[in-house]
Amino acid sequence: MLTEDQAMARAVALAARGLGSTSPNPVVGCVLLDAGGEVAGEGFHAIAGGPHAEIVALTQAGERARGGTAVVTLEPCNHTGRTGPCAQALIAAGVRRVVIAVDDPTPDAAGGAATLRDAGLQVETGLGRAGAEAGNTAWLTAVRRGRPYVTWKYAATLDGRSAAADGTSKWITSEPARTDVHRLRGTVDAIVAGVGTVLADDPELTVRDISTGSLAGRQPLRVVVDSSGRTPQNARVRDSAADTWIATAAAVGAGPDGHVDLSALLTELYARGVRAVLLEGGPTLAGAFLAAGLVDRVVGYVAPKLLGAGRPALVDAGVATIAEAIDLNLIEVTQIGPDLRFTATPAEKGN
Amino acid sequence: MLTEDQAMARAVALAARGLGSTSPNPVVGCVLLDAGGEVAGEGFHAIAGGPHAEIVALTQAGERARGGTAVVTLEPCNHTGRTGPCAQALIAAGVRRVVIAVDDPTPDAAGGAATLRDAGLQVETGLGRAGAEAGNTAWLTAVRRGRPYVTWKYAATLDGRSAAADGTSKWITSEPARTDVHRLRGTVDAIVAGVGTVLADDPELTVRDISTGSLAGRQPLRVVVDSSGRTPQNARVRDSAADTWIATAAAVGAGPDGHVDLSALLTELYARGVRAVLLEGGPTLAGAFLAAGLVDRVVGYVAPKLLGAGRPALVDAGVATIAEAIDLNLIEVTQIGPDLRFTATPAEKGN
Repeated sequence: MLTEDQAMARAVALAARGLGSTSPNPVVGCVLLDAGGEVAGEGFHAIAGGPHAEIVALTQAGERARGGTAVVTLEPCNHTGRTGPCAQALIAAGVRRVVIAVDDPTPDAAGGAATLRDAGLQVETGLGRAGAEAGNTAWLTAVRRGRPYVTWKYAATLDGRSAAADGTSKWITSEPARTDVHRLRGTVDAIVAGVGTVLADDPELTVRDISTGSLAGRQPLRVVVDSSGRTPQNARVRDSAADTWIATAAAVGAGPDGHVDLSALLTELYARGVRAVLLEGGPTLAGAFLAAGLVDRVVGYVAPKLLGAGRPALVDAGVATIAEAIDLNLIEVTQIGPDLRFTATPAEKGN
Repeated sequence: MLTEDQAMARAVALAARGLGSTSPNPVVGCVLLDAGGEVAGEGFHAIAGGPHAEIVALTQAGERARGGTAVVTLEPCNHTGRTGPCAQALIAAGVRRVVIAVDDPTPDAAGGAATLRDAGLQVETGLGRAGAEAGNTAWLTAVRRGRPYVTWKYAATLDGRSAAADGTSKWITSEPARTDVHRLRGTVDAIVAGVGTVLADDPELTVRDISTGSLAGRQPLRVVVDSSGRTPQNARVRDSAADTWIATAAAVGAGPDGHVDLSALLTELYARGVRAVLLEGGPTLAGAFLAAGLVDRVVGYVAPKLLGAGRPALVDAGVATIAEAIDLNLIEVTQIGPDLRFTATPAEKGN
């Protein structure tokens, strides 16, 4: 028997298993408790177009759903999308009570809680909200802002260099750290890099096993920010391993400096269903994103090494003096192999 | 009643209280157990010229030393220095057994254990050696190498900048981190900075309370590495708060590049009794020390901020390509206020 708190924690963990494959939908987890409080079914939204978490759990539970409680990380949808409204399915199954962590912020899907209440079900919202919000940060932020959630990832030495004086950078960080980067790539819908990085390093920008090279089944869209279309025809990012979009100023629109308008780029990506972006550099593109306030999270892999020369991790972030420094809130510092991984979010600027 | 292990741990802790004021002597702690194993006296070497740890403990113990055990972090001295040989004092007091963590590596003070044994005392060496060595790292390293132990301290943003584009750097790190720097300064005999830093920032390089500005009672020697004698007459480092040495190439000797020969500088500092040096920058001087293999420890204060422009924490460390990167062993990562403090030692280079 699970308490509703325990069931919600389980639902949040289930939801996380969908990260990277549900966009433009959120990740959702659901645990169905029968009338006696035993787990009768559980599910998560695994892939856009596939069944919603509630439907998976209801199917598992069958008749045991009757009189039971659905514990779900996000407000059940009210609209008839590709899979029919979950609110109606819960009502039809005879569920007595629905516990919801986070309200759905999207106008077309919202209203599920009201529908459930109108049908006489007990509805409680807000249980485990913080954990469920954290699990869905990218999607919630994207939907609220109307642009993808942007994570800037970099790798550098302790003195902030991403390459040595001669341009070599393989490898600054350890194999465990690089494996972790591929895990991170697997959680997003698009990987964004600047044409400078493509010209300098010719990266693949795929999700793969770094020891065998074998590609993951699902690959994020590769996006090259390439104002004037300089990406070589034989660049690795143009291979068949994943879809690629060469985003030129002509296609996206240009900012005052003639370069790709990054805000317009993100709007276009959002329209294409991208909810989470991994920005992988280089330093100039990262600086432009930061200067425009378009970075939601920073993940830095820092190797315990010193170089004293070579490409900095970040340039031109719009900071001229110390008082303008971009303040971060450190969320986590973890050792990965010999390296450290920092996770941080830009602090809200005071007025 | 204490076990000898416990007594040694206590002696190591006592020894640490002398850090910063015993040079050119080591830090030493001593716990005297009486014949029943009870603590009869304890002491540490507090200041060069003052009584040694064993003498302090023996004085406290008085007659209770007879038949007892002296637990001491470093081999008792055998020479008649400013305070008389401790080995003789232990014998005269009737101590039965002496437990020593670390042998004395200096030719003039060594031999204490043999003297004790010759007099019929039980002598055991090596108990708690790792902890006692760690507590005396600076002095032991200095004596073994014939040059001071060098700690390079820097403060930087997460992207490795020590100042913003306009040169401002006050304050990159938080007040707790800056307070910690003054604590660190209090453990060394000399603070070394380059003339570039003096010209750019006009630092005081003193140990003080950063909120009140009041100076600590003991101040390390301030050393400006100033090849051609450009330190201004009114520079703060020339004030009366502490002794200062403007180390010019003419005084110290020059390397092939015409700048102060850093190895000769350290030899001269050692001759002046300096055993622990804090190297505080700037980036070029730090690079020269690192390139010459003259850094024993790195302490980095890293603020969770991004600048994207401005003075790097480190330049010209003699690294041209990624394979030559200076590898560090991370000893500790600690949060200090909002900042992180990294402590690391350069890894031994493979052959």
